[in-house]
Amino acid sequence: MQTDVVSYVRDMAQRVKRASYSIGKASSREKDRLLRAMAKALRERMQEIISANRKDMQWAEENGLSQAMKDRLLLNERRIEAMAVSLEEIANLKDPVGEVISAWRNKDDLWIHKVRVPIGVIGIIYESRPNVTSDCIGLCVKSGNGAILRGGKEAINSNMAIYSALKSAFKEVDIDPDCIALIETTDRSAVGEMLKQVGLIDLIIPRGGEGLIRFVTENSLIPVIKHYKGVCHEYVDRSADVEMAVRICENAKVQRPGVCNAIEKILVHEDVAPTFLPKMAEVYKKHGVEVRGCERTRQIIDCKPASEEDWYEEYLDLIIAIKVVSSLDEAIDWINEHGSHHSDGIITSDYESGLRFVREVDSAAVYVNASTRFTDGGVFGLGAEIGISTDRLHARGPMGVEELTTYKYVVFGEGQIRQ
Amino acid sequence: MQTDVVSYVRDMAQRVKRASYSIGKASSREKDRLLRAMAKALRERMQEIISANRKDMQWAEENGLSQAMKDRLLLNERRIEAMAVSLEEIANLKDPVGEVISAWRNKDDLWIHKVRVPIGVIGIIYESRPNVTSDCIGLCVKSGNGAILRGGKEAINSNMAIYSALKSAFKEVDIDPDCIALIETTDRSAVGEMLKQVGLIDLIIPRGGEGLIRFVTENSLIPVIKHYKGVCHEYVDRSADVEMAVRICENAKVQRPGVCNAIEKILVHEDVAPTFLPKMAEVYKKHGVEVRGCERTRQIIDCKPASEEDWYEEYLDLIIAIKVVSSLDEAIDWINEHGSHHSDGIITSDYESGLRFVREVDSAAVYVNASTRFTDGGVFGLGAEIGISTDRLHARGPMGVEELTTYKYVVFGEGQIRQ
Repeated sequence: MQTDVVSYVRDMAQRVKRASYSIGKASSREKDRLLRAMAKALRERMQEIISANRKDMQWAEENGLSQAMKDRLLLNERRIEAMAVSLEEIANLKDPVGEVISAWRNKDDLWIHKVRVPIGVIGIIYESRPNVTSDCIGLCVKSGNGAILRGGKEAINSNMAIYSALKSAFKEVDIDPDCIALIETTDRSAVGEMLKQVGLIDLIIPRGGEGLIRFVTENSLIPVIKHYKGVCHEYVDRSADVEMAVRICENAKVQRPGVCNAIEKILVHEDVAPTFLPKMAEVYKKHGVEVRGCERTRQIIDCKPASEEDWYEEYLDLIIAIKVVSSLDEAIDWINEHGSHHSDGIITSDYESGLRFVREVDSAAVYVNASTRFTDGGVFGLGAEIGISTDRLHARGPMGVEELTTYKYVVFGEGQIRQ
Repeated sequence: MQTDVVSYVRDMAQRVKRASYSIGKASSREKDRLLRAMAKALRERMQEIISANRKDMQWAEENGLSQAMKDRLLLNERRIEAMAVSLEEIANLKDPVGEVISAWRNKDDLWIHKVRVPIGVIGIIYESRPNVTSDCIGLCVKSGNGAILRGGKEAINSNMAIYSALKSAFKEVDIDPDCIALIETTDRSAVGEMLKQVGLIDLIIPRGGEGLIRFVTENSLIPVIKHYKGVCHEYVDRSADVEMAVRICENAKVQRPGVCNAIEKILVHEDVAPTFLPKMAEVYKKHGVEVRGCERTRQIIDCKPASEEDWYEEYLDLIIAIKVVSSLDEAIDWINEHGSHHSDGIITSDYESGLRFVREVDSAAVYVNASTRFTDGGVFGLGAEIGISTDRLHARGPMGVEELTTYKYVVFGEGQIRQ
């Protein structure tokens, strides 16, 4: 079996790499036609997908998966329709491939163009909802990349049904259908094999829990862009509009606590803490948010004490840790030291504080007077997103179709040689 | 000793990371002042550096290093002056940090700016000439990054003397000198330790032979951008101007055969082969270039037969392999399959052939009617280069100061919350 997985993954990677040149050079019109045909196929095969999903749901039931996991797994007509709409929205985006990023003439009279091109083949390893299958294939098609997908074993029947519907759409276009592939074995060693396909898979995107991310990072011979955790902060500056600060910290914590751009910590300047903290505590109490405070916080409001681990933890829940600081400098240093460099904001009415915060806080997205919840490819206006990169190389923050491309230099000469 | 290296590298990485925020926020003027002070220090300490270099040269002599290696190792007044000039040229480049790559207002009336920022801390592992120490520190200073350097043991005395001169320049500016560091132990395990400093070192750039690159890629937990080999091609199309083709293939092979952008292979269309090959063979004979040909080549000119391995090998020498192909398609497929995706060119007078070649050949730099030898940051006009990336992610081809940066999103709001 082990040997079978080795050659299964290797053969698939070779096939997808070869076919990736076909989607890589396909016209925008052809790729958009494919995306719309995929949306149509999802609608036509809706019942087929739903019955495949029933098998997964039954397995989840028998194996005692949590209610939250079952919710994520469930497909119904509304959710499949949303997947189809999402593919149509991707079709409506601007094609990033072929964009001339910059062009100039050098001293040798060469015309040099820096041109956006697909990365090649993207390997996506995910654990979560079956709609990821359709979203990721859509984004890879748009950006001209081949794609190899490996989903969670609990969603295997749903993923196979979605994949089969999407694959059927290739009959309507002149693009090699081998450019997308789904790993259909649930053998765990397939992930390890994917990570070895140097020269065939060009980028690995892991989406899932800490264990998966760590396994992929430690074992991949291929570049990885991680979609990891968000330990996001709001810093309430001494000059903050307190009403605004309460409103933003409410939104950033409770509007959707289970996502990576929700805040997990509040830092508050000592001068404003006596006014801000009681109001904030009242609002959080209303929403059932558990507050854990530093010593100075606990001198002002009644709450649990925060432990050292609290400053690093991503709760993804209705819990927040609050710390009183003595200066903007302390807040900036604290966030750079304890945060996850995802999304962090300041609430201030002071020009210099705002400017220093956005310059000196080392995070993918830094905010003045707005909720961190806005860190999202769709909300930013990048179109659909494949995730939010917590890495610093290649792509940082929301990753849309443009971030699924690289570039090459195209040089036009008239016989020039180097002296 | 092993434990000492572990804490030595860890402590250094922590110190450099902390200080990297100091150089990251330094003004352009301050960084340029530092670069010019570094150039001055190199000139002032020239004799000190030369006597340190003598120790390395003596070691090289005693340990029987090749003449080529000793040439690379040698420092003299002219070479140190060139290092100083290079630092001044880096000072004259435009500061990439703070550039607003793009900015827009989204539907929520947020003002979103995508701003260029330093990557953080760059780890550079190199084997070659001691001037790399000065060049890399210069590029990291300009781009606002911290730098940890690990050079080859044969150059340790030269590297330490250069580093010490550069470090002394910090007394003239208000930037934390801990932002640059040189690993002064020659213990091999220090490289392995560098590759584990996740969160402290943000990018590893290995520059050296195949063994070093492989070791780094297989062991790094940190993203790596490789500067690997170039198996570059010129394809002589059926419509090529034969004189131009000969001139370009001469230049691309013999002007400097030991570099990665020199060609190692020629593909020639069967229609033009009978005219092109005899002329090319004559020119190569004059330069002492050894030609290895496919069967069809050998029917036209007298040369050694090419083996299967010849199509993949980077000779870095006066050797070339030549193959006759039947079509542009065959040439494109061949290059994508056998090349190293570095620099490849077509010689043609046909519009469509040129266009298809640059679109479909999957290389960092693709040329029409020009020598591949132009792939170089300085020649392209990017300013100095830290190397030529053979990777696809983040940076592809010549890597200048801009490629040593990443970006962050700076978002200005007026109290917006997400609905």
